[in-house]
Amino acid sequence: MSKAVTKEEALEYHQFPKPGKLAIETTTELKTQRDLSMAYTPGVAFPCLEIEENPENAYKYTAKRNLVAVISNGTAVLGLGNIGALASKPVMEGKSVLFKKFSAIDSFDIEVDEEDIDRFVDVCKAIAPTFGGINLEDIKSPECFEIERRLVEELNIPVMHDDQHGTAIITTAGLINACDIIKKNLEDLKVVVVGAGAAAISCARMYKAVGVKNIIMCDSKGVIHDKRDDLNKYKKEFSHPKPLSKIEAFRGADVVLGLSRPGTFTQEHISVMADEPIVFSLANPTPELFPEDVLAIRDKAIVGTGRSDFNNQVNNVIGFPFIFRGALDVQAKKINMAMKKAAAKAIADLAKKPVPDDIKAIFGDHLVYSKEYILPKPFDKRLIVEVSAAVAQAAVDTGVARVKSFNIEEYKEKLSKMI
Amino acid sequence: MSKAVTKEEALEYHQFPKPGKLAIETTTELKTQRDLSMAYTPGVAFPCLEIEENPENAYKYTAKRNLVAVISNGTAVLGLGNIGALASKPVMEGKSVLFKKFSAIDSFDIEVDEEDIDRFVDVCKAIAPTFGGINLEDIKSPECFEIERRLVEELNIPVMHDDQHGTAIITTAGLINACDIIKKNLEDLKVVVVGAGAAAISCARMYKAVGVKNIIMCDSKGVIHDKRDDLNKYKKEFSHPKPLSKIEAFRGADVVLGLSRPGTFTQEHISVMADEPIVFSLANPTPELFPEDVLAIRDKAIVGTGRSDFNNQVNNVIGFPFIFRGALDVQAKKINMAMKKAAAKAIADLAKKPVPDDIKAIFGDHLVYSKEYILPKPFDKRLIVEVSAAVAQAAVDTGVARVKSFNIEEYKEKLSKMI
Repeated sequence: MSKAVTKEEALEYHQFPKPGKLAIETTTELKTQRDLSMAYTPGVAFPCLEIEENPENAYKYTAKRNLVAVISNGTAVLGLGNIGALASKPVMEGKSVLFKKFSAIDSFDIEVDEEDIDRFVDVCKAIAPTFGGINLEDIKSPECFEIERRLVEELNIPVMHDDQHGTAIITTAGLINACDIIKKNLEDLKVVVVGAGAAAISCARMYKAVGVKNIIMCDSKGVIHDKRDDLNKYKKEFSHPKPLSKIEAFRGADVVLGLSRPGTFTQEHISVMADEPIVFSLANPTPELFPEDVLAIRDKAIVGTGRSDFNNQVNNVIGFPFIFRGALDVQAKKINMAMKKAAAKAIADLAKKPVPDDIKAIFGDHLVYSKEYILPKPFDKRLIVEVSAAVAQAAVDTGVARVKSFNIEEYKEKLSKMI
Repeated sequence: MSKAVTKEEALEYHQFPKPGKLAIETTTELKTQRDLSMAYTPGVAFPCLEIEENPENAYKYTAKRNLVAVISNGTAVLGLGNIGALASKPVMEGKSVLFKKFSAIDSFDIEVDEEDIDRFVDVCKAIAPTFGGINLEDIKSPECFEIERRLVEELNIPVMHDDQHGTAIITTAGLINACDIIKKNLEDLKVVVVGAGAAAISCARMYKAVGVKNIIMCDSKGVIHDKRDDLNKYKKEFSHPKPLSKIEAFRGADVVLGLSRPGTFTQEHISVMADEPIVFSLANPTPELFPEDVLAIRDKAIVGTGRSDFNNQVNNVIGFPFIFRGALDVQAKKINMAMKKAAAKAIADLAKKPVPDDIKAIFGDHLVYSKEYILPKPFDKRLIVEVSAAVAQAAVDTGVARVKSFNIEEYKEKLSKMI
């Protein structure tokens, strides 16, 4: 593992060469009076009129075509909680940097100083004409569900709350491969989800969508069940018919997905699970239970964490840049479940293929599809090709794409030259 | 004059190399897992915490320091009227391009689909943490006055509606020099303003602020006077005590400022003005009255238009990029009248100085301070130095700057290397 980032290093990184991590670049010439007449008045009137006549022309004559906003109110920043809109800006700029670097999407951050659901939605809707897509980020639960639901419904551009779906898509990919390796069917799994926040709910929903039937969810008070009277409607979706203890929930479970805090499950819980359990211990930076502690109890376990210094890192960066890339390129009106599933499958498939040399050069030759490698690594340049193409194809297939013609092979060729 | 921009050329300019005119550039490295830990989690937590502790640190660790939003609802786009938020995007991107090219300010456009004053203000306030400044653009009158007034009052970053103040600042600069040339005092001028929209009101206010006492304003119904019962509160500010005809208003006037439509004043009106009148005929692209028609009646007139193919172009681009540059660099809380006056004076002073060779190379050697050259040209690289420094100094002097120390000579040195 590389040395931990120090405060001094991180602050320096954010100050030089200039404050922050983003700048604007102009893509056209502006050196003469004539350029000025083209970029601004009077020439600019022509594209304006084309868009006024047909709004779809905005994709032809403006940056909207390749532009995703990273929007947050700073109410649930990873590891920091509700630090407010302004203080969340470095995270949101960082997310925009990832969009640009991983998938050549132009992205900038918008910090919205508004916690009320209706007013937050109103702000996003009002500024939406600006963008080709919206990535919601670090908005607290349960508000984030309603905010995303309304924006997806009321806007005609892709909107995705990455904290929910990013983790869902990546862990679904991991789950598909883990099941493949231990030769179990998704339909037969018993899954315990520890945590009942935005990511947990979204993961559980996606697991159901790919065929998982038996899911038990726990929050800080234990197993979520029908006898409890303290459940919001999102938790109720995963309420178990009868009361049971957490250890009972774990008994014979094939999978545990931890999206909570260090220590919310222990070796005791692992010890009652199936023989080859799948353990996603995703609390960050300290996992619920460290991989070595899981393996000490179940040496055949498949373990994933959120950290780059262990095997099987569940990192959203192998998902969202490519999901939006595919959605933007077919001018999708939304990101639907079919597109999310296609992303998960493409990610899973990629881990099964031989690892390219530049990635081996970083991680070593041992990187082959196995219990220790079920998910592709960030910086794997095949991700943009495979995941974006799969998402775009799914958008076309499900009728949410605006583009009239789409050829996946030509598109993959284009993607392969993009970064 | 260069050939008029054709529709084909303008549309091509907006399509290649990519749709639109803006892209995002990342300013830090992101090639390794370690860079990732610096730009995003976990490293990004350090600047977040610094900003949570002291909001001013956002200027140190985020792009806010050099970031101006160009915000419009597309209700009053130059020459096109109310074309809506989306269709106005090419203009707003263009404005952001001008910020970047002329003053190295990072700027992006936000199109707000909202015409209601309160809701528009709410949206701007909600997203304000993102930015170091806000340039309001192409918002219709009279709504624009209240929108700007409230945002200036309620936000602690510079907010300026350029359609109002840009024209006011540039024509004030022109007026100062024109008076200098014809040896008249601002205090003694009789000024007729033809037009009563946002720019006209703002110009009239600024002329009063620099000492002009006698201003008569006309709208489409003629002279604005106290006997009329159809005046909004902005027009009432400039209401004449008693009814008079437009020709009476022009009689003996030293200055006419046209911000209206072709033909709203004619040679007949010019013929009753002072012997050396100052005529700003700023309707775009066709002036109220063409320079040759003014000069046919008053050969000693000083004439300015909005066009680049005549002398004395009144072009906002010689103002706003440098005004925001100066305001951002001292982290001004607002752009006040002192800063606007300082900008006008700096622009006026610059026209008095010998023209640099690169500008002469474009316009010819005849470019010397005279009735035909009262305003510096766009692309004059001294503008950023002189105007930004004057604005920054005025901000410091009037106590609206956040920076603790400011040395104008050091700052000018820095500015001279900026573009």
